[in-house]
Amino acid sequence: MATLQDIGVSALINLFGAFLFLIAFAVLRIQPINDRVYFPKWYLTGERNSPRRSDRTLVGKFVNLNYKTYFTFLNWMPQAMKMSESEIIRHAGLDSAIFLRIYTLGLKIFAPVMVLALVVLVPVNVSSGTLFFLKKELVVSNIDKLSISNVQPKSSKFFFHIGVEYIFTFWACFMLYREYNNVAIMRLQYLASQRRRPEQFTVVVRNVPDMPGHSVPDTVDQFFKTNHPEHYLCHQAVYNANTYAKLVKQRAKLQRWFDYYVLKHQRNPHKQPTCRTGFLGLWGKKVDSIEYYKQQIKEFDHNMSLERQKVLKDSKLMLPVAFVSFDSRWGAAVCAQTQQSKNPTLWLTSSAPEPRDIYWQNLAIPFISLTIRKLVIGVSVFALVFFYMIPIAFVQSLANLEGLERVAPFLRPVTRLDFIKSFLQGFLPGLALKIFLWILPSVLLIMSKIEGYIALSTLERRAAAKYYYFMLVNVFLGSIIAGTAFEQLHSFLHQSPTQIPRTIGVSIPMKATFFITYIMVDGWAGIAGEILRLKPLVIFHLKNMFLVKTEEDRVRAMDPGFVDFKETLPSLQLYFLLGIVYTAVTPILLPFICIFFAFAYFVYRHQIINVYNQQYESCGAFWPHVHGRIIASLLISQLLLMGLLASKKAADSTPLLIILPILTLSFHKYCKHRFEPAFRQYPLEEAMAKDKLEKETEPELNMKADLADAYLHPIFHSFEKEVELSSSSSSEKETHQEETPEVRVDKHETQSSSPVTELGTPSHHHYVYNSTSPSSHYTSAYEQSSSQYEYHYNTHQYEDHEYRYK
Amino acid sequence: MATLQDIGVSALINLFGAFLFLIAFAVLRIQPINDRVYFPKWYLTGERNSPRRSDRTLVGKFVNLNYKTYFTFLNWMPQAMKMSESEIIRHAGLDSAIFLRIYTLGLKIFAPVMVLALVVLVPVNVSSGTLFFLKKELVVSNIDKLSISNVQPKSSKFFFHIGVEYIFTFWACFMLYREYNNVAIMRLQYLASQRRRPEQFTVVVRNVPDMPGHSVPDTVDQFFKTNHPEHYLCHQAVYNANTYAKLVKQRAKLQRWFDYYVLKHQRNPHKQPTCRTGFLGLWGKKVDSIEYYKQQIKEFDHNMSLERQKVLKDSKLMLPVAFVSFDSRWGAAVCAQTQQSKNPTLWLTSSAPEPRDIYWQNLAIPFISLTIRKLVIGVSVFALVFFYMIPIAFVQSLANLEGLERVAPFLRPVTRLDFIKSFLQGFLPGLALKIFLWILPSVLLIMSKIEGYIALSTLERRAAAKYYYFMLVNVFLGSIIAGTAFEQLHSFLHQSPTQIPRTIGVSIPMKATFFITYIMVDGWAGIAGEILRLKPLVIFHLKNMFLVKTEEDRVRAMDPGFVDFKETLPSLQLYFLLGIVYTAVTPILLPFICIFFAFAYFVYRHQIINVYNQQYESCGAFWPHVHGRIIASLLISQLLLMGLLASKKAADSTPLLIILPILTLSFHKYCKHRFEPAFRQYPLEEAMAKDKLEKETEPELNMKADLADAYLHPIFHSFEKEVELSSSSSSEKETHQEETPEVRVDKHETQSSSPVTELGTPSHHHYVYNSTSPSSHYTSAYEQSSSQYEYHYNTHQYEDHEYRYK
Repeated sequence: MATLQDIGVSALINLFGAFLFLIAFAVLRIQPINDRVYFPKWYLTGERNSPRRSDRTLVGKFVNLNYKTYFTFLNWMPQAMKMSESEIIRHAGLDSAIFLRIYTLGLKIFAPVMVLALVVLVPVNVSSGTLFFLKKELVVSNIDKLSISNVQPKSSKFFFHIGVEYIFTFWACFMLYREYNNVAIMRLQYLASQRRRPEQFTVVVRNVPDMPGHSVPDTVDQFFKTNHPEHYLCHQAVYNANTYAKLVKQRAKLQRWFDYYVLKHQRNPHKQPTCRTGFLGLWGKKVDSIEYYKQQIKEFDHNMSLERQKVLKDSKLMLPVAFVSFDSRWGAAVCAQTQQSKNPTLWLTSSAPEPRDIYWQNLAIPFISLTIRKLVIGVSVFALVFFYMIPIAFVQSLANLEGLERVAPFLRPVTRLDFIKSFLQGFLPGLALKIFLWILPSVLLIMSKIEGYIALSTLERRAAAKYYYFMLVNVFLGSIIAGTAFEQLHSFLHQSPTQIPRTIGVSIPMKATFFITYIMVDGWAGIAGEILRLKPLVIFHLKNMFLVKTEEDRVRAMDPGFVDFKETLPSLQLYFLLGIVYTAVTPILLPFICIFFAFAYFVYRHQIINVYNQQYESCGAFWPHVHGRIIASLLISQLLLMGLLASKKAADSTPLLIILPILTLSFHKYCKHRFEPAFRQYPLEEAMAKDKLEKETEPELNMKADLADAYLHPIFHSFEKEVELSSSSSSEKETHQEETPEVRVDKHETQSSSPVTELGTPSHHHYVYNSTSPSSHYTSAYEQSSSQYEYHYNTHQYEDHEYRYK
Repeated sequence: MATLQDIGVSALINLFGAFLFLIAFAVLRIQPINDRVYFPKWYLTGERNSPRRSDRTLVGKFVNLNYKTYFTFLNWMPQAMKMSESEIIRHAGLDSAIFLRIYTLGLKIFAPVMVLALVVLVPVNVSSGTLFFLKKELVVSNIDKLSISNVQPKSSKFFFHIGVEYIFTFWACFMLYREYNNVAIMRLQYLASQRRRPEQFTVVVRNVPDMPGHSVPDTVDQFFKTNHPEHYLCHQAVYNANTYAKLVKQRAKLQRWFDYYVLKHQRNPHKQPTCRTGFLGLWGKKVDSIEYYKQQIKEFDHNMSLERQKVLKDSKLMLPVAFVSFDSRWGAAVCAQTQQSKNPTLWLTSSAPEPRDIYWQNLAIPFISLTIRKLVIGVSVFALVFFYMIPIAFVQSLANLEGLERVAPFLRPVTRLDFIKSFLQGFLPGLALKIFLWILPSVLLIMSKIEGYIALSTLERRAAAKYYYFMLVNVFLGSIIAGTAFEQLHSFLHQSPTQIPRTIGVSIPMKATFFITYIMVDGWAGIAGEILRLKPLVIFHLKNMFLVKTEEDRVRAMDPGFVDFKETLPSLQLYFLLGIVYTAVTPILLPFICIFFAFAYFVYRHQIINVYNQQYESCGAFWPHVHGRIIASLLISQLLLMGLLASKKAADSTPLLIILPILTLSFHKYCKHRFEPAFRQYPLEEAMAKDKLEKETEPELNMKADLADAYLHPIFHSFEKEVELSSSSSSEKETHQEETPEVRVDKHETQSSSPVTELGTPSHHHYVYNSTSPSSHYTSAYEQSSSQYEYHYNTHQYEDHEYRYK
């Protein structure tokens, strides 16, 4: 077991690492050349067009020469705190603001309880001192002397622990209730303040029945004209464009090569770039690259044109899915919430996600296969969660050097070195686990995609749920049981099976040291790494060096990134679980958790203000999950404490705990009933109020025109322009805009005036999505940017396409 | 353990009992004097007005003198089969028809599997013969030799059992799917064929917010005018009339005494009846009873009139509940299925139950207390289910005579008598259990009432669910574990805990004999008792003797009863569970189950056609529960079989079973998704189609007038008439009808012409509910009958009132 000294070494390493990262960040962020890496959000909102610079010399363009700014290396913290919450909502969207609230919730829950637990429980635990006698049997650390393990069995001191658990549960529930209430109000206010957006009027209809002799659009039209005669407006059919999307992807690759050679030629006009036509350009005929790719693109465009015709005309490629629009929010809300057909598997309606949130590929999945897909993925996730434990258990066993030495005695000389021992004990287990977990979210996202959800936000939430289950079983339970099993295998084999639950109960407090190091490595160091943004920094400078020609290219080379909910939420929930479980058991863990929450809050606040740009806006749809999992953590902590006390033979006090889970569950049920509908359905009262207001302010509104193309597959938007412009230069853009005079191009103006500006990331800004104007705006903006997009070598743009059509 | 011989004795006793009951029934049912006991349904539908009689003599009026009819004592069976299902739906409603389908479903599932299991498994089991060697250790019966217990451990013969389990699961799922589909179609067809009824246009709104300065009706009116402007028609406020209802109850008691003395006086005009005014009429001043009660009723009416004014005027007694009516089914369906307010605990809408299905008292429960009520009842049901086991376990222990003798050796001489032994073993355990279960449904119904459901049909379904859990834990698991625990306590204490699951696995087949006797006592004899209707027979003749004056009184003295879903459904589901669990374990139990299903099917078909009159029509709303619990039984059987095989060390074959629960659960999920919405929500397509049809056929329809009073608390309907008529005689009724000429009184006419006649039971027929005419019909019919009702001594009517306002 790790001793207090090991923890100290580990804490020092981590603090030093975090400190180094912060220093590096402080230096790097004030260099004008890095301005687009550390402040991309301001460029996207249009409030900054060129780097801030204190010095107007040439060197000053790249390096900060103002030495004063180097002395205040933590001044980003007060800066990050300056912006108020409502400003953050306007600036970065509601998801980000609510995400930050999770950290403050953590502080609000844990900080007061930490004080209570340290003041009450630590003295109670220390004053007992059983473990000194046990030391020969079980290897214990100093930290255990501060934990519940140190209290003698049958002691009446356990009433203190139960009291703290009660106070903690009530306090946590009180804070959870307040926070759920706040978040629900914020969400409703945000929805109410939104300007007109296509998803408010639109419903996605799946499983349109196949009527012989009728096309899908006819069937849809007839059905909604009959059953929603007063509010039905129009609908948009959905085509199976997955083949076409593949072509687009391949063409984009060609375009990338073309752009590459054009740039190469421009930089070195004397040399005509050449390439070989064979496999990977390694052999084959040597040709003029620019000409070759121009030709290839031309051919491809012809093929794509044919394919496009085929998609639009072939009724077999028309999916039994439609985006149905209504003339009022009320009509759309009604249609989304009601059952349409007497066969409940037909005409399935639900509120449409916003256009940039749709994962188009999954619309093509036949509805009938969804049940099977969910079953298969359910079984796979189960297998992944439970059999992934085998490698984790092996790595965990390394955490115990004594165990390792027993298995491999030849390592003893190395592991006896004090520093290496401390390093191995304190740093390695957390790191190894982290690497395991690193590849996982992508796998889980792919699994969620197979399940067939049609919105990116839902996909992320589902992936987050899977990741949480994984962490719960493997990181939390796996660490407790596997580690213990290795240590106590001998005693397990020689005691009766009824002893096992008792031994597990005992091992929970003994794992506190492992989780403290985990919090430091994964939490502290991870967050410090987050703010440094090493990967985007390197990539930006590489791009800047080799690819950027104009200022606009530079904009595109920025990678602001986004809060990756599918990874951050489950991790956060794991920290909540650790804090909640160890509150009554080993309260010394709480300061580490609180430091994590506070530090992460500052960092994420800074990043959300200055860096991140969310892909979509779900209006805090993840909150019910956050709430639910904190409740689940409370239940787990109560059950574990019961087991632990039972193992301590505290028969007098244990029954007192039984009522807590019942109360917690009732609280959860009440909250679910009270708040969750606000996150699932759009209330008619709100819809009607907004409809009325809009009718008064804008009585003559052509909704149909606004909604007509809002839900067209994005690749169809771009097609016409691509063909026209693929061989022309970017300076012709203005002419193109004149070609389509009916489309208002007012991207920059609307960007700056918009109260809730949610620009896409650069990789998305061809979907520029404008909440202040009717949807035709962003359609036009989309077209404009998509016309630009064909000229420039923004590898990210294509990566994003791959992401969407993978 | 009971031997084959014991089972034989028990079967004989039960068969003989059933035979006696059937003979008695055959004789009694053809007596004209009993005609209203055995054929009340025909009187209620208006197809019969006086008993059938073969002989026109005076004696023939009471006794059947046609000796030929005595020879065919089973001829009610073919008669019961004559009516087709669609006729039953018209005659007795959809609930009854679907209820009968549960029995045919049982036959369809078990009959083919019984043949398979008897042909395949019994020879396999018999040919093994392990138990002969075990006999000294565990007491086994001959029946066990036919069961899986007889197969040697590690035998490859277990593949047969697994194969049968697989075939059985697939067959059962196939039949369940077909049946769910049929029932869903029947329900939708029935709903589509219904004529206009107030509940189709009405939504019940709960938790209307309290707006300062606005009354509830104003708030409701304003809210729905704003948010459902196109379809909102009117609403009906709900008053807290529980105090008033108490007065009505007390007044009814006085009326009953008044009627009693009036009748006494009429039968013996020379003697003026007197009574004492003191406690229970035992002491106090002696007065003229008729005058006294007349006076008392007069005073009471005055008080009631004041109370009534108070209820209608005091805004504090106006509940935050309203019945909101729309001008179309579409509008009502939309309102019922959508979320109204941004606070999801306000303005809760759901489809209104039909007026006679409403449990008015629960409308007064403040919504906020519902969560607490549900929690409290949840905990109570848990306690009831699990701690009720203690007395049951004691009674169960009696089932084992060897055990009893060991405990009380002095009883040995008695229990050694062969007949008493067989009787005790075969009859007593089932009977004792039955008595325990007899008082339970009423307790559970009261618990469901406390939970606050507002429809009688929901109350019954909730009570049925609780009863099912009770039976599952206490009858099924309790019998297996408690019985076994008593027998094997010794070996339990001396073996390691890992042995326990194995021992339980072994004891499942050994309990087959107990369940066979249970099926015979509870099933066979119970059903035979059902057809004899001993209690209603006695009560009818008592009433007939003492209370009946006119033919109409006689109608009211009839007690047709109804299928009591809250008791019959859980029992049925227990039989399904027994059949499913023992199919692969002890197939010899299946013939007993099949006989039960067949016999019960005949009996209930006869009763539904000739006797029962349902209180309400839920259109088969119980089917999802039936389906879900049969699925649960399949899962239980699979898990138990797995445990059993594991205890038999059948390591080769057991893993093959793991896939079955996963498939069964997926099947359930699919069915839930495919069919359940049809039982929960009214699809808009259907609503719109019916609206359109109606608009075409009856373009000039005053909906508002029809709906205005449909949901008025029934006691208010009756009040005016009561006051006017309480002191007058029944002959004045005609004049009264002339006083209210706007009310069409065409009860009998509509009764006979109605295609879906659902009269109330006599105890309800003041709520005569007429599906063929606009709702004003039944309002008028109600008023008419309620005016009659005050004159007559129908104790049942008051009992019913108590039932509703208890």
